[in-house]
Amino acid sequence: MKINGKSYRTIWEKEGAASLTVCYINQNKLPHRFEILETSDFRRLLESIKTMDLRGAPLIGIAGGYCICLAINEYHDKARLQSDFREICQSVSSARPTAVNLQHAVKLIQQKITFAETLEKIKAAALAAIRCFAEVELESSRKIGEFGKEILIELSKKKGGERLNVMTHCNAGWLACLDYGTALSPIYAARDAGIDLHVWVSETRPRNQGAKLTAFELLHENIPHTIIADNAAGHLMQHGLVDVVIVGADRVTRSGDVCNKIGTYLKALAAADNGVPFYAALPESTIDSTIQ
Amino acid sequence: MKINGKSYRTIWEKEGAASLTVCYINQNKLPHRFEILETSDFRRLLESIKTMDLRGAPLIGIAGGYCICLAINEYHDKARLQSDFREICQSVSSARPTAVNLQHAVKLIQQKITFAETLEKIKAAALAAIRCFAEVELESSRKIGEFGKEILIELSKKKGGERLNVMTHCNAGWLACLDYGTALSPIYAARDAGIDLHVWVSETRPRNQGAKLTAFELLHENIPHTIIADNAAGHLMQHGLVDVVIVGADRVTRSGDVCNKIGTYLKALAAADNGVPFYAALPESTIDSTIQ
Repeated sequence: MKINGKSYRTIWEKEGAASLTVCYINQNKLPHRFEILETSDFRRLLESIKTMDLRGAPLIGIAGGYCICLAINEYHDKARLQSDFREICQSVSSARPTAVNLQHAVKLIQQKITFAETLEKIKAAALAAIRCFAEVELESSRKIGEFGKEILIELSKKKGGERLNVMTHCNAGWLACLDYGTALSPIYAARDAGIDLHVWVSETRPRNQGAKLTAFELLHENIPHTIIADNAAGHLMQHGLVDVVIVGADRVTRSGDVCNKIGTYLKALAAADNGVPFYAALPESTIDSTIQ
Repeated sequence: MKINGKSYRTIWEKEGAASLTVCYINQNKLPHRFEILETSDFRRLLESIKTMDLRGAPLIGIAGGYCICLAINEYHDKARLQSDFREICQSVSSARPTAVNLQHAVKLIQQKITFAETLEKIKAAALAAIRCFAEVELESSRKIGEFGKEILIELSKKKGGERLNVMTHCNAGWLACLDYGTALSPIYAARDAGIDLHVWVSETRPRNQGAKLTAFELLHENIPHTIIADNAAGHLMQHGLVDVVIVGADRVTRSGDVCNKIGTYLKALAAADNGVPFYAALPESTIDSTIQ
């Protein structure tokens, strides 16, 4: 999606670099400064996951995968890598407690590499795995938009094309993914399909991801939006000013329970109390089948 | 109640002043600065109600009454006062839109004065009326504590005396009243009765009255408390960490509907969903019998 009219993704490989170098938007500096970080050091990228320079369930999965690739690149001795590998994977898996996507990315790389191969082939296999993982995530985000926009088009028709008011919580936009987003992907797709819409962006205390990130990306995509105090969500619904709520998810259990940013539950209760449709938009990598 | 160990009320008449002079705590400066404002100018006091130097439904009723007394004091000609009086009352009544207490105080003074009397007697009658109004408010706050503490004592017994977790929203403590508070009055009374309790203080965006005022007054009364993001209220209830919610009210309709600070509704929904008892604590002056 766009920032100042130029297309970006949240994370990418630096072109023409001698060895794998990862570039990413420093989300802790948004909205006041647009800063791109660049590193070949796996510790730096891991630190960025921990300190939330990079955040959003799908994005940290991808970033975690790149972390392992960068770590592997530091080795010149396969036996040494093999003896350290479990610890590297563990440090990436546990970098953030909320999203299961990190573990999914780590497991994928673990499956795709084999220590019977040469070190060079291991490095190449790990990089191929994370590139494939990223492509799948990108396609998931795009498809969430395609599927979700149908719901918005339907709701818009019911309103006779009158401006649709969509509420979201936290940031589940393209900044939380590689591109497009989860909760915001249907909004971008519906906008592209000509639907008139406006987004209620809840501030999302205590870290203000709504006010800082969601508002930032909607602004740069020219989508009408209003930042609200989290406390105002119920009041707006009571007054018929919310047509639908779409949120992302940190983790979804096998039975469909959604874990998401603190405050999502209060919005869901208010939506239920006021008959407002409520959706969680997520890629498959957010489902944790180990939890019932 | 106490600030730095010294007893205060939120508003009081300056002792020994040549003419009526009203002192009050500047609540916009809390918690970082403890400042007492002092004025004989009704415009200054009215401005303080508008800008929320003074806030809280019961307190602005009393402050509004003093406003009218200060305004009357500026007149040396009864006919002139009589012709301006409606406008004075109107400006006080409409200083803040939320609480009905302002209108109640204004009406009381209107009832207690008569222009058949001398100007001196009118001034004395208005002052007597607001002093009486303030005393009634003080007694209401005290009694809310007496009645409310029984509920807390009962809940504490059910927990076998284990620490009771009370959640509140915004500031409905002594800073919102003349003294004692509404929602917090039962907490102070229960503490005095030896009940072990802890208060979840919701930040209360967008103006942060919980974080700025409620935490301040609980701190100075040595009551254990924790400031939380408004978003965390439901989560704490889901995990059994809230035994009861007590809030104040801006206005209560004849049929018992409670209007209060934005976000109260979300807390009430979460309390209902988790079987947590939920109370609104208020004096009679908060009831608006003109609304069904």
